[in-house]
Amino acid sequence: MSQQTFTVQGMTCGHCERAVQTAIKTLDPQAEVRIDRAQNLVEVNTAQPREAVAAAIREEGYQVAA
Amino acid sequence: MSQQTFTVQGMTCGHCERAVQTAIKTLDPQAEVRIDRAQNLVEVNTAQPREAVAAAIREEGYQVAA
Repeated sequence: MSQQTFTVQGMTCGHCERAVQTAIKTLDPQAEVRIDRAQNLVEVNTAQPREAVAAAIREEGYQVAA
Repeated sequence: MSQQTFTVQGMTCGHCERAVQTAIKTLDPQAEVRIDRAQNLVEVNTAQPREAVAAAIREEGYQVAA
């Protein structure tokens, strides 16, 4: 497991938070996910590679800073 | 059936649109719903009373102008 922090643009509401959370949990059901929408922050504790997590977020339609 | 137009605040994304649409369709599966999110407009063609439609939208957490 490693702690990863992403800056994610476009999460405008609680539905967006849940969409991002569900996408990450689908990738890794053991992942711990914390989202601070006001700060555009998504913190993930997971064994998955960072790029896989970023791709899962992007597939939901949100922008992930490089 | 009657055409009803609501001004709805707080629909920030596509998930919100779908939440409003689903709430109205749950109230009346025959309803026709058109949402213009940029204009905060929800147009509904339904046999349900206007107050029931407004209540369904409010229950999703959105503000409906009086």
